[in-house]
Amino acid sequence: MTTFAALYVPDELGDAVSGRAWLGAMLETERALARAGELAGIVPGDAAKAIAAACEVDRYDWATLLREGRDVGNPAEPLVRALVEQVGEDAGRYVHLGATSQDVVDTAAMLVARRCLDLLLADLLRVADATAALARAHRETPVAGRTMLQQAVPTTFGLKAAGWLIATLDAARRLADVRANGLAAQLGGAAGTLAALGDRALDVSAHFAAELSLPEATLPWHTNRLRVAELGAALALCCGVASKVGLDLELLAQTEVGEVRFAGPGGGSSAMPQKQNPVDAMWARAAAALGHAHASVLIAAPAAEHERAGGGWQAEWDALSAGLAATGGAVAALARALESLEVDAGRMRTNLDLSGGAIVSERLALVLTERLGRTAARSLVRDAAARASADGGTFAEALAAAGTGLSAAELEAALDPTTYLGAAGAFVDRALARHVVERERSFA
Amino acid sequence: MTTFAALYVPDELGDAVSGRAWLGAMLETERALARAGELAGIVPGDAAKAIAAACEVDRYDWATLLREGRDVGNPAEPLVRALVEQVGEDAGRYVHLGATSQDVVDTAAMLVARRCLDLLLADLLRVADATAALARAHRETPVAGRTMLQQAVPTTFGLKAAGWLIATLDAARRLADVRANGLAAQLGGAAGTLAALGDRALDVSAHFAAELSLPEATLPWHTNRLRVAELGAALALCCGVASKVGLDLELLAQTEVGEVRFAGPGGGSSAMPQKQNPVDAMWARAAAALGHAHASVLIAAPAAEHERAGGGWQAEWDALSAGLAATGGAVAALARALESLEVDAGRMRTNLDLSGGAIVSERLALVLTERLGRTAARSLVRDAAARASADGGTFAEALAAAGTGLSAAELEAALDPTTYLGAAGAFVDRALARHVVERERSFA
Amino acid sequence: MTTFAALYVPDELGDAVSGRAWLGAMLETERALARAGELAGIVPGDAAKAIAAACEVDRYDWATLLREGRDVGNPAEPLVRALVEQVGEDAGRYVHLGATSQDVVDTAAMLVARRCLDLLLADLLRVADATAALARAHRETPVAGRTMLQQAVPTTFGLKAAGWLIATLDAARRLADVRANGLAAQLGGAAGTLAALGDRALDVSAHFAAELSLPEATLPWHTNRLRVAELGAALALCCGVASKVGLDLELLAQTEVGEVRFAGPGGGSSAMPQKQNPVDAMWARAAAALGHAHASVLIAAPAAEHERAGGGWQAEWDALSAGLAATGGAVAALARALESLEVDAGRMRTNLDLSGGAIVSERLALVLTERLGRTAARSLVRDAAARASADGGTFAEALAAAGTGLSAAELEAALDPTTYLGAAGAFVDRALARHVVERERSFA
Amino acid sequence: MTTFAALYVPDELGDAVSGRAWLGAMLETERALARAGELAGIVPGDAAKAIAAACEVDRYDWATLLREGRDVGNPAEPLVRALVEQVGEDAGRYVHLGATSQDVVDTAAMLVARRCLDLLLADLLRVADATAALARAHRETPVAGRTMLQQAVPTTFGLKAAGWLIATLDAARRLADVRANGLAAQLGGAAGTLAALGDRALDVSAHFAAELSLPEATLPWHTNRLRVAELGAALALCCGVASKVGLDLELLAQTEVGEVRFAGPGGGSSAMPQKQNPVDAMWARAAAALGHAHASVLIAAPAAEHERAGGGWQAEWDALSAGLAATGGAVAALARALESLEVDAGRMRTNLDLSGGAIVSERLALVLTERLGRTAARSLVRDAAARASADGGTFAEALAAAGTGLSAAELEAALDPTTYLGAAGAFVDRALARHVVERERSFA
Repeated sequence: MTTFAALYVPDELGDAVSGRAWLGAMLETERALARAGELAGIVPGDAAKAIAAACEVDRYDWATLLREGRDVGNPAEPLVRALVEQVGEDAGRYVHLGATSQDVVDTAAMLVARRCLDLLLADLLRVADATAALARAHRETPVAGRTMLQQAVPTTFGLKAAGWLIATLDAARRLADVRANGLAAQLGGAAGTLAALGDRALDVSAHFAAELSLPEATLPWHTNRLRVAELGAALALCCGVASKVGLDLELLAQTEVGEVRFAGPGGGSSAMPQKQNPVDAMWARAAAALGHAHASVLIAAPAAEHERAGGGWQAEWDALSAGLAATGGAVAALARALESLEVDAGRMRTNLDLSGGAIVSERLALVLTERLGRTAARSLVRDAAARASADGGTFAEALAAAGTGLSAAELEAALDPTTYLGAAGAFVDRALARHVVERERSFA
Repeated sequence: MTTFAALYVPDELGDAVSGRAWLGAMLETERALARAGELAGIVPGDAAKAIAAACEVDRYDWATLLREGRDVGNPAEPLVRALVEQVGEDAGRYVHLGATSQDVVDTAAMLVARRCLDLLLADLLRVADATAALARAHRETPVAGRTMLQQAVPTTFGLKAAGWLIATLDAARRLADVRANGLAAQLGGAAGTLAALGDRALDVSAHFAAELSLPEATLPWHTNRLRVAELGAALALCCGVASKVGLDLELLAQTEVGEVRFAGPGGGSSAMPQKQNPVDAMWARAAAALGHAHASVLIAAPAAEHERAGGGWQAEWDALSAGLAATGGAVAALARALESLEVDAGRMRTNLDLSGGAIVSERLALVLTERLGRTAARSLVRDAAARASADGGTFAEALAAAGTGLSAAELEAALDPTTYLGAAGAFVDRALARHVVERERSFA
Repeated sequence: MTTFAALYVPDELGDAVSGRAWLGAMLETERALARAGELAGIVPGDAAKAIAAACEVDRYDWATLLREGRDVGNPAEPLVRALVEQVGEDAGRYVHLGATSQDVVDTAAMLVARRCLDLLLADLLRVADATAALARAHRETPVAGRTMLQQAVPTTFGLKAAGWLIATLDAARRLADVRANGLAAQLGGAAGTLAALGDRALDVSAHFAAELSLPEATLPWHTNRLRVAELGAALALCCGVASKVGLDLELLAQTEVGEVRFAGPGGGSSAMPQKQNPVDAMWARAAAALGHAHASVLIAAPAAEHERAGGGWQAEWDALSAGLAATGGAVAALARALESLEVDAGRMRTNLDLSGGAIVSERLALVLTERLGRTAARSLVRDAAARASADGGTFAEALAAAGTGLSAAELEAALDPTTYLGAAGAFVDRALARHVVERERSFA
Repeated sequence: MTTFAALYVPDELGDAVSGRAWLGAMLETERALARAGELAGIVPGDAAKAIAAACEVDRYDWATLLREGRDVGNPAEPLVRALVEQVGEDAGRYVHLGATSQDVVDTAAMLVARRCLDLLLADLLRVADATAALARAHRETPVAGRTMLQQAVPTTFGLKAAGWLIATLDAARRLADVRANGLAAQLGGAAGTLAALGDRALDVSAHFAAELSLPEATLPWHTNRLRVAELGAALALCCGVASKVGLDLELLAQTEVGEVRFAGPGGGSSAMPQKQNPVDAMWARAAAALGHAHASVLIAAPAAEHERAGGGWQAEWDALSAGLAATGGAVAALARALESLEVDAGRMRTNLDLSGGAIVSERLALVLTERLGRTAARSLVRDAAARASADGGTFAEALAAAGTGLSAAELEAALDPTTYLGAAGAFVDRALARHVVERERSFA
């Protein structure tokens, strides 16, 4: 069942969510369990060694395990049987000791997620660095601020990029927090009591987690899927960033706007040789849409019956794999889009003039308010804008005709969009300062 | 990227959404386009033949096409290039003539969906037949009706199964309607005008659709994704049925309820040899949860920018593939669960007695209302129920003690749950009659 | 709890989902039930009359019923008690006879939905008529077709509007189908058997439905929430249309595109007097986003436990009310946006020239393919486009320089975007023809 | 438009999301802005005082503001006009100075959210305390552990409650984190540059946030809706807890399980006087389902166009209000359910015996493995379970007949479910210890 994911998921991430990766993670879980048993004194060293030796991915066939897993409800049970077969009856007594299938799948899920989160954080760092570079480079570059897709007042492209940067840092912080504190080994046995491990239960649990370098949870969490939901929520935030920035990039790249282009290879069209499509921004949005859907399954995970759900738990596996892949694909595509971005400051300047000065009507209104009062000033400005629009003249001409009491030079100065940028530069500096701090904190 | 889908998706359905299936469908689209061009007189017969000959799946490698599709934004464009290479420069002029990548992918999606819908309808038919058989066999079998998971009044297992049947028929009708009217060939060229086909455009369009045995849409539908959303909605309805019936089966199979069991192979546990898990009901619910998430992407498809979305369209492909697979997997699992169902009518009868007659307190209240008036009757019944619950005695005893004015025989008759089944039988018959009609209509 | 819905929900629709409307619908249900009992011979005529007289909205206080409904889990139970109080003990025996709270709420929901669907269909008709008028008026108006937000090839604004029209007709057809066949009276009693009605059950059921002019379902559908999901899906389709057209309108209205404006009152800004916001298109999108979320709850309704869900059913009420309101609000806003639309054909023409002819590069490639073969033609065109982009010259100049072998006149003709519109006109005609047919079918 | 929310939303929370509350919060924002301007030296003290005096909720009519807000796209703009009218032309110059409508609505949303989060945290604390009390009281109470709704192995009710406790603490931690760090004042002016405030921009911004006791964001966050998504995600986690615990409670309260009851007033039925419905658990699940849907809108908020979305932003308001109300309603209902919970330890013990000892088959398998090896032991146990199920005998009898080599006393001891509870007690203690710590941390 090859999917379209290869179109947007980086190979390394694709490998990290592959059947082989899951199989490897399940085997690593069984190995760690045997070793933990050894350290706790309930598994002979020889048995633990034999088990460890048998925990090699190439000895097992994932497709076969899935096929055998149909009847029992999960792929861990057939794996345990295959593992027992590998090590023989004697060491076989110590395979999977005290554990249940869910322990293996849940812990493997954490290992798979950890690897993917590392890749995701690395690509988020690329996004953060690229947006920070844009913010720095374009700290002073005026561009139209647009609300409801209408030009509103000027801003800077640097501030726009700084907004993307902060969103990226917000998402990275959540993801890094999940990476550090939200993953945990799962070991509870059939119903979470570890009864089959007798008085060595807590010992084995501690060694098991340590062996896998995963935190140990307060309780076995098979019944408490909050950490799955938190992971899903963190992925959704990343998808949110990819959707937002991808969308802004596509809007800026529109033929009629033309403020950015992409230097990358992409974007040819089968029918239209001239076309340069914003392919990476598009993949960022497409993958993010899919990531959101997968995340919704994870976010719904807590509503599970009793000690193990009859459906909800088993839905998590695909949602987690596909959700990590799609989210990672979205962020990677966004990184590529940003790294290949060509900014056309000249076109930004041209577009600022499209409204013939009306884009700074807010300033005009402020200046005139001091002379005429709020109501009169605002109605004068509104009328001038309306007249310009009706006559096809410019806003500046309409204002001049309206008798504002301002000199021509005063009027020209008031209508210059490049001098009405407020605290944009200061805000950019604040974002860049936070970038420096968060680089240490979230991406270390 | 092997997923967990193999755990619950039937092999045939898995094949139908595989990369190979998509590749085949895209090639079939190109073949049909060339043939349509021939019929419309703008493609030489030799070229059409050469193209048809080159449209063999084994000549192309899906993974390569996906890799090459990254930069251009879809896998159709590399396929067209490969196809041109196969047929050479002369016939190559007629490859993909007048079409755009979206035409190929959208039409292929319809072909993939059509094949999957056939499989899905076949499994829905199994579900309908199995529930109909249960409804017929258990037309008279009393079982506790349960609201908010509390025993309410008696019903029959036949009526319960009839409810599942009607839900199945409802979903099948929508799906069959989408199968018959909701799919359509897509051919619009770069922006939907078929401009590159000149005055043969409508001819080619008609031949193209006919060649693929797909309806021709009123307009090229690249910009109007309603049919994608309708397909998604129909899948969601199927998932709804699988969730509902799967859940009811799991609830009935609970250890403490024990009214159904599954004869199938499944359900063993790695740790608990005695356990019989409702594995197929579980897969039905798990797959349905995933199907719902994929369907939500399809349902959101209409919000696409202008003549082709920058993200939304491309997200459809995975959502469609995975949505068809998950939904089909859910329905197939449900069919297996129902076909292996063992109904324990004795246990149903025992459970009806758990409340010591209180399950027919509604009838008691009605009988007593005739004697005592509504308010007095209801409070007598409520008090008796409360007393029984407090004392640990039965409802019958508490009623006898309360002085209802009924003879012992009258009281016993009034408290017999098996004679308070109302129109259950007649309702079952109505459902079975509709089953007969819909079998012709939806599954033909 | 006054919400923001008043910002976008028409007053009439707001009334139709209000507490008062629900209360009225529940009373109408009780009235119809008593009357059905009378017709079936189990309720005395006087009692039915007394009950009908008491079924006046103004006798009851919705807020009180909600407060009392907290402890019992729904507002119908307190209403029944209040109704009994109104009619006295004698007639009171016949109040709510044989019914359960769910019968009242479900049937009332159908009545509320029916009224809202009528309003919704009326506004969908406005949308259909407005888009049809645009399609007709602009059958020949060239505009840039845009894929991935890049100009691709020319199309007509009429074809664009025709696409909106077809989407609207698709959604209306589903909605009209739900209106005609998807609603149904619900009467099942405590567990769907109508046991309390004895041998008059089917009679009462038939009269009840007839009295309300609602179809009678094959079975009581309290356990089968497919019709709720179908309604949700139909609302989602409407939201899809509103999202799509609203988005296209916002994109066309962008300051830098300027191809449409809105003549309506709206769109002023508190800070920027000159700004004309696409307010109605915005409300269409905002309300549609909310409608989608509410619809998702309805689409998930089938997964309900046994004979009545412990949570899922009760979540339907708010989702249905708010979903109908939001969807209706979205469609009404869209109708307003379209009815106030001013199309700037001149600006459309100007924008078509932005690419200096490259927008018809597809035609160039076709023309040159006949002379040079596919590969050479495409690379010549691609190079010219690239050169134009690099030099700042036009595509036409670059082509002329490239030596195409075409005369200047041939080149000019080939580069004219207004003559490369393919079957756009014919497609518009097909859409308009379908509009005529569907007006009868869906909106009658 | 009165909704059904009154059925499950506590009055205090209902007030906190009411139109009055939003109006109050918007006025508080305008007051704080004027005061901040005064502190920054750009608003005269008299004007600030006049504005503050005019910022009284009773002077304005929310319904009117909503009606007027239709045409301009939000309710803040009419409020500003009304406020100017209240204070007159002179002070009016300083109303809303430098701000845009979004500043007012976004900041008001934060104030509304803060109040609701306080209420929500208070109810989460009730849930945490109630589950902690259950965990402590039932540290040793055996109950069947159930996986896939089948009895698996014994656990304790204390451990079950401890699982609920930890989930609650997880959700509370996220919510408390959002409460402390995720809210922020929004002040950016028309496009985020605060250009209208000149060189006092950063001063005003700092004073504004301080005046409202809200954190100041690194940047104005009108373009970066991550904090809205984070709030949505935190609400979804709370809904997850309510769904999980509500579902477990309903399952435990089933007539056939009977392990818990609710002492509360609720649960009567209109038709069935004896019925005790788990009404509060039901509301918890119903409200959580709605909360999830609203949260999904918030989680999707980041995908907003440029400096202000044309639809996405405006959809946030209802989603936020309704999402806070539904989530709070879910948690409050859960608190009531837990606080009225009656645990039937005797019934738990009885249910443990339903399988005739098979519930501890895992222990049997372990004990026998030491004697017979893994494979033989497991097959002996499986055969005995199968025989018991087939013959209707008990598992103990079948085992005795099978010749396990264990003495009768050994067999009896091995089959005692109350001595196979593993580390349940120790886990409970760990959860209770974390409860103590988190009470300080999250609920302070």
